[in-house]
Amino acid sequence: MSKRTIVIDAMGGDYAPQAPVEGALLCLEKYPDLSIVLTGKEDAINKILSGKTYDKERLTIVNTTEVVENEEKSPVQAIRTKKDSSLVVGLRMVKDKKADGMISAGNTGSVMAGATFLVGRIKGVFRPALSVELPTGKNPTLVLDLGANMDCKPQYLVQFAQMASIYYHKLHGIENPTVALLNVGVEPTKGNQLAKEAYQALSECKTINFKGNAEAREIFEGNYNIVVTDGFAGNVMLKTTEGVASYIFTSLKKEIKSSFAAKLGALLMLKSLKKMKNSLDPRRVGGSALLGINGAVIKAHGNSRQDSFVSAMDQCLTFINNQVIGDISDALEK
Amino acid sequence: MSKRTIVIDAMGGDYAPQAPVEGALLCLEKYPDLSIVLTGKEDAINKILSGKTYDKERLTIVNTTEVVENEEKSPVQAIRTKKDSSLVVGLRMVKDKKADGMISAGNTGSVMAGATFLVGRIKGVFRPALSVELPTGKNPTLVLDLGANMDCKPQYLVQFAQMASIYYHKLHGIENPTVALLNVGVEPTKGNQLAKEAYQALSECKTINFKGNAEAREIFEGNYNIVVTDGFAGNVMLKTTEGVASYIFTSLKKEIKSSFAAKLGALLMLKSLKKMKNSLDPRRVGGSALLGINGAVIKAHGNSRQDSFVSAMDQCLTFINNQVIGDISDALEK
Repeated sequence: MSKRTIVIDAMGGDYAPQAPVEGALLCLEKYPDLSIVLTGKEDAINKILSGKTYDKERLTIVNTTEVVENEEKSPVQAIRTKKDSSLVVGLRMVKDKKADGMISAGNTGSVMAGATFLVGRIKGVFRPALSVELPTGKNPTLVLDLGANMDCKPQYLVQFAQMASIYYHKLHGIENPTVALLNVGVEPTKGNQLAKEAYQALSECKTINFKGNAEAREIFEGNYNIVVTDGFAGNVMLKTTEGVASYIFTSLKKEIKSSFAAKLGALLMLKSLKKMKNSLDPRRVGGSALLGINGAVIKAHGNSRQDSFVSAMDQCLTFINNQVIGDISDALEK
Repeated sequence: MSKRTIVIDAMGGDYAPQAPVEGALLCLEKYPDLSIVLTGKEDAINKILSGKTYDKERLTIVNTTEVVENEEKSPVQAIRTKKDSSLVVGLRMVKDKKADGMISAGNTGSVMAGATFLVGRIKGVFRPALSVELPTGKNPTLVLDLGANMDCKPQYLVQFAQMASIYYHKLHGIENPTVALLNVGVEPTKGNQLAKEAYQALSECKTINFKGNAEAREIFEGNYNIVVTDGFAGNVMLKTTEGVASYIFTSLKKEIKSSFAAKLGALLMLKSLKKMKNSLDPRRVGGSALLGINGAVIKAHGNSRQDSFVSAMDQCLTFINNQVIGDISDALEK
């Protein structure tokens, strides 16, 4: 593995700049050959770094004066106007091959728009997609699109499946990963217009291992390696997952407080409960790979704490070292 | 409250006929003025009733020879051809005012199609919708549509909101219940084409208390009384909820088995864990009200056990005794 340089957006996410900066230090510790560039407000970054021990040769700060906010009204506009933002400057470094990849926990829309406009798409890609791995009873399931493409055409979903098949194979070493279409029932005639047409198009695609429709319920059973859907339904699914998990753990906490036996029980179960909670915590799941972008760009969750940047770095390096982009490009040329 | 006669489809659901028949007996116990008609195979029903004590005057069996299966390829076709099925015969009784309402745990598509074709829509209703109440940290949230209407127009969603507002008020006594649109972000410009147009249409509707967009994550916090969406996204949300809850409790079980301390802890927490699980168990949440149908038809969950029929009966009687249909009809005429 050759030496890599990865940009971390120091200003992106709910806990920026602290979480990305401290996350960067954890990454340097884990990967002795890695160099990191932090883009962001130099003063703020240095304040966090001050007094900390790390290999200064492998950490560079590129000072930027603007910030793409979490709540930008127009993500595209933000990318166009905030030219000296930590996000735009970082993405330009990827575009100009000054860095091998980038991680940002900033506004999803802006990261996606920035990656698309500044780094660009892989030739032949209709629409890049946001993907994330969900925990299941078996192998994790890679789901996409999670919100980059609101109104999709059937052929976009076919391409999502093709790109995801290559990525999943690299991530987990599974040949011909299985693909399902998110739908409201398993029969081919089920669903809205898009789902019905996508079912047909996916069935006809010879380069993927399409297994048919999957209901959202089934996904957590881990019966499929990859699940494709449009960005609206995918986003609803992802956010429902977060909502239900958070509801269950909050209610459980309340319940536990209501009885002494339960309190004692919870104490004994603490490790189990925490392990469970973490497996569904988006902060620990790592980031979303932007599939279809001509560069390794990982969108870390907005809630990311420092350790999430390590998971995102794992993903980013896997992406680069396995030449996911080259393989997607080759597959689409066929 | 006057005496009511409700049909229960004895052949519908995963545990039919046992669950609906035993559920009927529980309902008779709970409501001393209630009469129940069981539609289904007389022999099978009598076998379950044999030896049981109940008020025979208030339980009638209408023998039917056909069954609409859970896995019907075409729900509409099943309704058209299986004229002597427990579902069709029951719905006809509602249509003909021989019964005040009906509960079925059968195939959702068939119950919806049957109710629409046989009982009919309330005058002025574009599309009837399937609604269900989800548990939240505060008041329950009524979500619709959950799968009856795959491709929706913005005005359908406005009507879903109007009908749900009336029903929610009757159920919980809350005046002007708040309404939100399920979307991928809170800003008015977010979402797919349908969501953008629906946002506009909902904003312009003066008879509802529209509060804007809600992300799926927020719904479980209970910030809104009603959430409207198209049947595809609603179904994805509902089934994700079931999938995540089941995943969490299955994994927790596995975790608990792995350590003695956790096992002991779980034993002490048993009551809390069960309470939690039940609150998310679709079998206990009761049924989906079919809003927009000119009769009280409750679709109980396919997994329904006997006690779910009691919850469904509670809903059915609330629906009838509060004249939800009359009020929806009046509201739509305005």
